Amino acid sequence: MFIPSIQATDNPVMAQALRSAIDGKTKPPGSLGMLEKLAHQIGMVQQTVRPAIVSPALIVFAGDHGIVEEKISAYPQSVTWQMVENFLAGGAAINVFARQNACALHIVDAGVNHDFGDRAGLLNRKVAAGTRNFATMPAMTAEQCTQAMQHGAELIQAIPGNVLGFGEMGIGNTTSAAAIMHALTGLPAADCVGAGTGLSREGILHKQQVVANAVAYHASMRSPLEVLMTFGGFEIAMIVGAMLAAAERRMVLVIDGFIITSALLVAARLQPAILDYCVFAHCSDEHGHAKLLAELHGEPVLHMGLRLGEGTGAVLVLPMLQAAVHFLCEMATFESAAVSNKSAD
Amino acid sequence: MFIPSIQATDNPVMAQALRSAIDGKTKPPGSLGMLEKLAHQIGMVQQTVRPAIVSPALIVFAGDHGIVEEKISAYPQSVTWQMVENFLAGGAAINVFARQNACALHIVDAGVNHDFGDRAGLLNRKVAAGTRNFATMPAMTAEQCTQAMQHGAELIQAIPGNVLGFGEMGIGNTTSAAAIMHALTGLPAADCVGAGTGLSREGILHKQQVVANAVAYHASMRSPLEVLMTFGGFEIAMIVGAMLAAAERRMVLVIDGFIITSALLVAARLQPAILDYCVFAHCSDEHGHAKLLAELHGEPVLHMGLRLGEGTGAVLVLPMLQAAVHFLCEMATFESAAVSNKSAD
Repeated sequence: MFIPSIQATDNPVMAQALRSAIDGKTKPPGSLGMLEKLAHQIGMVQQTVRPAIVSPALIVFAGDHGIVEEKISAYPQSVTWQMVENFLAGGAAINVFARQNACALHIVDAGVNHDFGDRAGLLNRKVAAGTRNFATMPAMTAEQCTQAMQHGAELIQAIPGNVLGFGEMGIGNTTSAAAIMHALTGLPAADCVGAGTGLSREGILHKQQVVANAVAYHASMRSPLEVLMTFGGFEIAMIVGAMLAAAERRMVLVIDGFIITSALLVAARLQPAILDYCVFAHCSDEHGHAKLLAELHGEPVLHMGLRLGEGTGAVLVLPMLQAAVHFLCEMATFESAAVSNKSAD
Repeated sequence: MFIPSIQATDNPVMAQALRSAIDGKTKPPGSLGMLEKLAHQIGMVQQTVRPAIVSPALIVFAGDHGIVEEKISAYPQSVTWQMVENFLAGGAAINVFARQNACALHIVDAGVNHDFGDRAGLLNRKVAAGTRNFATMPAMTAEQCTQAMQHGAELIQAIPGNVLGFGEMGIGNTTSAAAIMHALTGLPAADCVGAGTGLSREGILHKQQVVANAVAYHASMRSPLEVLMTFGGFEIAMIVGAMLAAAERRMVLVIDGFIITSALLVAARLQPAILDYCVFAHCSDEHGHAKLLAELHGEPVLHMGLRLGEGTGAVLVLPMLQAAVHFLCEMATFESAAVSNKSAD
């Protein structure tokens, strides 16, 4: 796949204009905390002191994982397609939160091990019926990886808005994400592996061993694209392609939990400037997420103990993005409201 | 003032019904983190497994403080009335966030040192034109304190919904709040005093001394109502009365930052069961707030470095309360969606 070149949002004049606009509002400087950082960042992405959030959307990418043969999940693989059906029926958490927040929701079959037939509301971009078991061979071929990334990039072309969240569904995909993290960062497997949908302590130790063994077995695979191909799911590869295309279009990318952040790790190793476009929605309770965020210097907005996936954190943070642009565009200034902006001393 | 008796929400049958309803949803148990706790709490307050948020409202109470004579604020006292004018004109942060979140906003003059005349949109409950300087005398008389609490309780009668947030404006009121905290908890003044609207390090040390001296000077004042009368602002006393009346009506109380939490500390010392009704919107960057929350065993929803006051945190958390009741009422169950809810092993 052609990797687009992502431009940094850096621009000292705009940065200063945004700083002045934020500090001129009727509030003590810095008192809106994270909202001030978001307002500044979104302003830089859009290169304006009057940013706006237009037609926010979330894409959920679903895929299955051959690594489930190693018994690394608390739930059976069939839950992947069952949850896709739940998305299509509107009954999952992501449906509820997307409705609440007026966020368009798109569901993509990136490679689920199930024949859905031709279904309204399901975007069929199935690369194959699940990846191979990366314990013993690369999860996908180079062609499959390229195809998945290409599909992701093309999907972005049909999205109208300027804010895009990413979600995922795939039994086994915290194992994929942990292997990507372990391989690309060199952090110990114990720092990368967590409970996923709910493993026991014993289950987590087994999953650590599976990840450590697999990454050691494929020790020659170390470039971002090799790691993605070797350990990734089709949904993760498709997300990498989608992220790169969305940042090229200068959208705000809303990063959900551990799996989405592992896709961003790959994208950022390919194009570091992509991080300028990323809002980190939350710090998940999944064990590896906090360290992965630190690796990317990502400062999460929410700390609510979420670990559901589907993009739920990305949709839940949207009101905070709205609040950030609203205060910047709508609040009075000290001057316009005739409020004293000086020390009493 | 007559202190209403607040009933605990405790009810084992309802608690179990809510736990089952939450765990039956199509998600790994506990994976919605704080949202699950909120859903459970709101269900307990409303005594139903199908809670709803009806007509959320926020009341901003404004008052002035005689303690400003001790030079404990970075801004002059006139900012209190200027900000009230800003609220009435719709240009403050709380106006912006209330509009965004469809939250009714009420502005109360609890005791601002300014003559607003008869103004549309301003509820005149002025007890006096600011409190006295509590460095040398009680901030208010017992009659004033009772009057303020009574006004607060009566204001609640006109509020139609079932979720009520509290906000405040008053130059000097972090000093009041710190003195209340220091007097009622016995924590060191250094743990209770922070930068407020933006004091220097030197200014904070001076403020600590003012608070420590005042609480030592009024050492005989230790009951909750004595402490409120001695160190409180009129807005803080009015909030205490409003909180007690709102909990008696079984509303959900949304607690904002440091000053609002200091009012709750007084209310909780009078009626401990009030805490069952309280959602702690956020942990503020104001120095004493984290320790004050810990004192009340309050678990804040947001950690966004906010320290503006006005009730901004309380309004910003409303989408999370909505998300909590929405997932509980709208999500499919494992059974209804035919999703496997068993281990793969």
